[in-house]
Amino acid sequence: MVRVVSIIELTKRQDLIIEIVKDEGPITGEKIAEKLNLTRATLRPDLAILTMAGFLEARPRVGYFYSGKSGPQLLSNLARKKVVKDYKVLPVIIKEASSVYDAVCALFLEDVGTLYVVNNKGYLAGVVSRKDLLRAMLGKQKIEDVPVNIIMTRMPNIVTCSPEDSIFDVAKKLIDYQIDSIPVVKEALDDDKSVFEVVGRVTKTTITKAYVELASGQSERS
Amino acid sequence: MVRVVSIIELTKRQDLIIEIVKDEGPITGEKIAEKLNLTRATLRPDLAILTMAGFLEARPRVGYFYSGKSGPQLLSNLARKKVVKDYKVLPVIIKEASSVYDAVCALFLEDVGTLYVVNNKGYLAGVVSRKDLLRAMLGKQKIEDVPVNIIMTRMPNIVTCSPEDSIFDVAKKLIDYQIDSIPVVKEALDDDKSVFEVVGRVTKTTITKAYVELASGQSERS
Repeated sequence: MVRVVSIIELTKRQDLIIEIVKDEGPITGEKIAEKLNLTRATLRPDLAILTMAGFLEARPRVGYFYSGKSGPQLLSNLARKKVVKDYKVLPVIIKEASSVYDAVCALFLEDVGTLYVVNNKGYLAGVVSRKDLLRAMLGKQKIEDVPVNIIMTRMPNIVTCSPEDSIFDVAKKLIDYQIDSIPVVKEALDDDKSVFEVVGRVTKTTITKAYVELASGQSERS
Repeated sequence: MVRVVSIIELTKRQDLIIEIVKDEGPITGEKIAEKLNLTRATLRPDLAILTMAGFLEARPRVGYFYSGKSGPQLLSNLARKKVVKDYKVLPVIIKEASSVYDAVCALFLEDVGTLYVVNNKGYLAGVVSRKDLLRAMLGKQKIEDVPVNIIMTRMPNIVTCSPEDSIFDVAKKLIDYQIDSIPVVKEALDDDKSVFEVVGRVTKTTITKAYVELASGQSERS
């Protein structure tokens, strides 16, 4: 079976069939045909389309039910199918002992908007954004002397995601928390404490690329 | 007619029909039935589905053609329908005479990532990003003394869009030019020269919201 997405223009008759099944389902194909003054054979393609497209469900010997799904709901499945692990990019990581100056350099060198900060064991300790760096530079201290862990957002206040999450859920988090970037992490245990290894990065750029992909009609990654 | 989007799982037989029409179209329904050892009546629902879904085109007395459209291509129409004017947000604008310090303040005050700079007539003169500001702050000069028009990206090097552009085209520009924000402009004439009035802003946040909307199955704006 090939999963295919398509835009269908429902005919007036198909719309009518949906209405009839909504009101009177379960209802047999014969009964629907009767109501529309048509033969069962004429109706067969319409019923096949409405069933395949997910509007109606057919149960043998009982008849047709209304599935309760609308077109846009069916589309959303596709946009929701995209998964973080297929889209994440490499994280840019600096050590907790780095200075704000080091962080600004890494930001330009790697051409990213957000840096992830790791502790001496290599686990996620914080996140530094361009705004955090700008704010730090407004301060009186020399940025070579300010350690990045003073200005970063630190665990447990960091929004993370896992490689198995959907791109849709991450996009919602980016909007809800008003952030630009979310570290993709794998949870581990260290001395019985929950720690996070950074395995990737999802940003608004990632989501914008996924949108372009969807709108270009490029096939799904899998 | 109701425009409806749906996910269809093509059956093996429907796949086979597409292949036959690809190879031998234009071909009549009878001929296809013959090739598959099926009756015309059995095949009718399949042909109806493939035609409605846009894979095949039927021409009376001639037969079926392959449309050349793949499923994802058909979906893309929907994602492409979204238009800038329905999604743009308010631009945050500063004057050309402002200092870098003023720009940093505006950025924090308005909580945006990019500022648009206008000349004394109010037309678009430049764009300043967080990175531009960070770079300026690395310099030796006091940021209160550096005018923003020294560090901004200036016309004609600014990527713009119009209210009528599709969100898809803007998303592509954001990716292709590696920028975070695009001013929405209306072109005018001033002393026979082309000038741009800034009427909005589209960012990667905008695209991320459009993705969430698409994936939530929320209905189209119009």
